[in-house]
Amino acid sequence: MSTLVTGIAELVTNDASRGEGALGVVPDAALVIADGAVGWLGPAREAPAADRMLDVKGRAVLPGFVDSHAHLVFGGDRAVEFEARMAGRRYDGGGIASTVDATRAASDDQLRARLRALVAEMRAQGTTTVEVKSGYGLTIDDEARALRLAREVTDETTFLGAHVVPAEFAGRRDDYVELVTGPMLAACAPYASWVDVFCEPASPHAFDGDASRAVLEAGRRAGLGLRVHGNQLAAGPGVRLAVELGAASVDHCTHLVDADVDALAGGTTVATLLPGVEFSTRSPYPDARRLLAAGVTVALATDCNPGSSFTSSMPFCIAMAVREMGMTPSEAVWGATAGGAAALRRADIGHLGVGARADLTVLDAPSYRHLAYRPGVPLARALDV
Amino acid sequence: MSTLVTGIAELVTNDASRGEGALGVVPDAALVIADGAVGWLGPAREAPAADRMLDVKGRAVLPGFVDSHAHLVFGGDRAVEFEARMAGRRYDGGGIASTVDATRAASDDQLRARLRALVAEMRAQGTTTVEVKSGYGLTIDDEARALRLAREVTDETTFLGAHVVPAEFAGRRDDYVELVTGPMLAACAPYASWVDVFCEPASPHAFDGDASRAVLEAGRRAGLGLRVHGNQLAAGPGVRLAVELGAASVDHCTHLVDADVDALAGGTTVATLLPGVEFSTRSPYPDARRLLAAGVTVALATDCNPGSSFTSSMPFCIAMAVREMGMTPSEAVWGATAGGAAALRRADIGHLGVGARADLTVLDAPSYRHLAYRPGVPLARALDV
Repeated sequence: MSTLVTGIAELVTNDASRGEGALGVVPDAALVIADGAVGWLGPAREAPAADRMLDVKGRAVLPGFVDSHAHLVFGGDRAVEFEARMAGRRYDGGGIASTVDATRAASDDQLRARLRALVAEMRAQGTTTVEVKSGYGLTIDDEARALRLAREVTDETTFLGAHVVPAEFAGRRDDYVELVTGPMLAACAPYASWVDVFCEPASPHAFDGDASRAVLEAGRRAGLGLRVHGNQLAAGPGVRLAVELGAASVDHCTHLVDADVDALAGGTTVATLLPGVEFSTRSPYPDARRLLAAGVTVALATDCNPGSSFTSSMPFCIAMAVREMGMTPSEAVWGATAGGAAALRRADIGHLGVGARADLTVLDAPSYRHLAYRPGVPLARALDV
Repeated sequence: MSTLVTGIAELVTNDASRGEGALGVVPDAALVIADGAVGWLGPAREAPAADRMLDVKGRAVLPGFVDSHAHLVFGGDRAVEFEARMAGRRYDGGGIASTVDATRAASDDQLRARLRALVAEMRAQGTTTVEVKSGYGLTIDDEARALRLAREVTDETTFLGAHVVPAEFAGRRDDYVELVTGPMLAACAPYASWVDVFCEPASPHAFDGDASRAVLEAGRRAGLGLRVHGNQLAAGPGVRLAVELGAASVDHCTHLVDADVDALAGGTTVATLLPGVEFSTRSPYPDARRLLAAGVTVALATDCNPGSSFTSSMPFCIAMAVREMGMTPSEAVWGATAGGAAALRRADIGHLGVGARADLTVLDAPSYRHLAYRPGVPLARALDV
């Protein structure tokens, strides 16, 4: 059963050989989907026949957004903490503890309902792949439970036992790292593709360079790919550690020194920027232009979580990246699609070449530019083919 | 036929005597609608019987958003101009001319289709009242046409012949003001409730204080209420002129001197802030805190238009006002509902007291705080009762 998608005012392929610019834009395009993959794409006038037709009536079509950084297994919310922060309180990660309490207290069904609602909310906004982290359980059972639930909705699951040091380990960070790298990792690895750590010596709640290295190396020995939360609150060792260890992505990158930019430019690690965090913590935005100028691969993601960034909207992140981080609309859309795929080391998503997964997002607009030009407007949705 | 709305986790009434704070928040509330108006509201446990029930299942309910500043009758779009601006080009209002050309060239049906699509898009995001301006026709017939079309979708129509001086009057601003205040006003007044002027001596395209006064006084003589675009690009006479003439609202207020704030504090004119404009023109945001501290009534609106702010999203404006303009979530929600109603001098909308119009917006969230806490997420929609 093949489907011919017609009426595409503008098709973003992310294949520069297929069309204009880095996005490989094909105007007045058509696309054939067969067996869940792209079978053909090109100018509408050259489209082959197919079993059925789907007319998108003058809309733009993009690869589905790839949200490579999200925390969707949690209980409670922190709207009141957000309100206090907007009135001047600083963010240091300490509020994570309240989500840990609420998550531990929640039933599987409660966590599952929230998780599924957020994934549906994302899909309704054009996100077709989402990475989901643990990190609000922080016991062996609660972390394994979070990952087991996450696996129900995505292949991209990340063990983040090293999110913060939980209250019961106060003053005993080394003991907690031993737990994370030992029995907790053993219990979680079967449900996880990735290991991650909140490397932030500036936070009293997170992990320094040595502890972060221990977590990442243990994860690698357990067969997991590496990801890092780095340089969110201050410059520190996170970015260079990520590059040194060949992590797929280092996320946040808000505070960088030249050596960090040089390391990223010389390595294989994607810099994933999370403008929702700077929005919701009222922090300075990272300088994407500096990274792009140095040749670094830049991805955008939501960091959807109840504390520092409760947006699930990739279009919002695109708009903020253009307004605040020096990205062009084209670079921001690339970062939210191909960039996210690179951050997950996936070749089958984030583009619409022949053979790619048929993950399509359609806009109620004629051009990808409208994602930044029309901020806040719900233009994007995943297309059910 | 009466309807009992139940399952309201949080009801924003904007009546401080009804509940907590300036928003008059009632938790676990119910509301009865009869004959298109609010018949009763209060705690759910005290709710009376009604002909039918509508369960919103733990969501927050607010007065529908009142978007008191929008330009929805136009042809074409300006996505490419937006992109150039994000790459560094400055905004001075000159691009309006390209929309004038596209608008004049469009058929009634084309303009109507765009207008209705935008109003539907707004309603799907929780806006139940929208003001619509002319201002892209700038001939007698084209301005009257815009207002005739606008009247098909709203009672709040505004004659903005004095948007910019059209190209055919280049160097003859006085002649154009004579046209606007004479035959153009006469042709437009039957379809308009308000007159407005882009008072901006700093722009080569707009109007100085004397011309603005002439436009407003002529409008008043024709029976129209007064509105002003003022102090967008630089400090100038707009705000004080608006207050002096008793305009319902002066909009933008980006660049204010102390005398402007004092005038607003001592007058009856609402200051309507339009954060979408600062977002999309990469301008400094206005300081809402300064106005609120002085006791000024502050409204929020989208200024939806294809040039300087193509958002239709009141939730986006609320989130930006909280992040960038020093408003609390409560003040921003008030500004987007009761504030907008005040800017239109309407007592029947913007609140949910008994007798108010049954314009309800429901959030996919338990609290109004989520409008800022979850930026970019399409949480709000107008409730069809």
